[in-house]
Amino acid sequence: MAAASTHWRPTERALAVAYCFECGEPLVTGVPPGEDRKRQYCPACGYVHYLNPRILVSCIVHDGERVLWVRRGQDPQKNLWAMPAGFMENDETLQQAAVRELEEETGLRIPATDLDLVVLSSLAFINEVYVVFEARHEAVELQPVVPETLEVRFLAEAEAPWDELAYPYTEPYMRRCYQRLRSGEKEMLLGAFSHNIQQLKNV
Amino acid sequence: MAAASTHWRPTERALAVAYCFECGEPLVTGVPPGEDRKRQYCPACGYVHYLNPRILVSCIVHDGERVLWVRRGQDPQKNLWAMPAGFMENDETLQQAAVRELEEETGLRIPATDLDLVVLSSLAFINEVYVVFEARHEAVELQPVVPETLEVRFLAEAEAPWDELAYPYTEPYMRRCYQRLRSGEKEMLLGAFSHNIQQLKNV
Repeated sequence: MAAASTHWRPTERALAVAYCFECGEPLVTGVPPGEDRKRQYCPACGYVHYLNPRILVSCIVHDGERVLWVRRGQDPQKNLWAMPAGFMENDETLQQAAVRELEEETGLRIPATDLDLVVLSSLAFINEVYVVFEARHEAVELQPVVPETLEVRFLAEAEAPWDELAYPYTEPYMRRCYQRLRSGEKEMLLGAFSHNIQQLKNV
Repeated sequence: MAAASTHWRPTERALAVAYCFECGEPLVTGVPPGEDRKRQYCPACGYVHYLNPRILVSCIVHDGERVLWVRRGQDPQKNLWAMPAGFMENDETLQQAAVRELEEETGLRIPATDLDLVVLSSLAFINEVYVVFEARHEAVELQPVVPETLEVRFLAEAEAPWDELAYPYTEPYMRRCYQRLRSGEKEMLLGAFSHNIQQLKNV
């Protein structure tokens, strides 16, 4: 996860920008000329600092009823468990981003064409949009290939680290994922995650 | 479309950033400490300038076989026709963003809960991800409410401005949309758009 160490940082920092990217002059907060809402902008050169959500991509790799989990090796949420995930970068498709993050965190390489879309969710509370794919792959033994991952394991629902989740708000969704894998049915969910609730509906 | 006048600008400008947002010092290009790829960063304070795609949201409003089009009142693509669309902002869900953009461009207000997800597409060539919703609404007469929109019209496929499309690469997708509306079938597409091709598949 290339940007793992900065998972929370860019948003916080983006709210605290002080200088213009283009000319280095101090930014001001107000309604820029021609705009309709308050933003940070540069009165010197006209640069407007738009704040747009970033896209978080994830790939759920499964073999029967077992799902691939990673234990995080760096903050935020160091030592806790999550799905392989990270931020989409410029110049890649959603599937390429998911495949890249999976390989970076687990060493497992899966073709982008093997990915099924399963979730599109707004995480408005952290200004992110979460896109989740699924892919089937044999439950091989995997060793972490980067220090940012401590463990990589295929785990059944009963073995999963529910008390050590890096992002506890994902639990209902992960439970639903296990249930879907048991049933063999496909579903694609549209939803919204927050700290406390999940709203997910079938598309 | 709040950010219409800057539709292409932020990406271009983001590639040309010169000064650190946080301390105003010049940025350099290289592999920042702890990272694995070249980025722009600030050797003075450690700020790393990540480049992530932005999310473009759109809402296709339809009544029977007629679909709501807008003629753009400002550049890029001034005077040409497109779907109501714009960039998702922080602090909103995907549906809220689509509803906001629709109202800003057409004056038409539709509840976010009425929206069906129909397309998720990577636009890697312009570092955007495109999320399209659909909603049914009576084909009322609409007058532009902002100067950035010149005309707002419900048009059948035979009436649609195929020779005056703001984004010609959307034509195959819009034709498929009309076809779907005629058939009454639902579909959710995952794909990738580029200048010349569209890859779309059912989810």
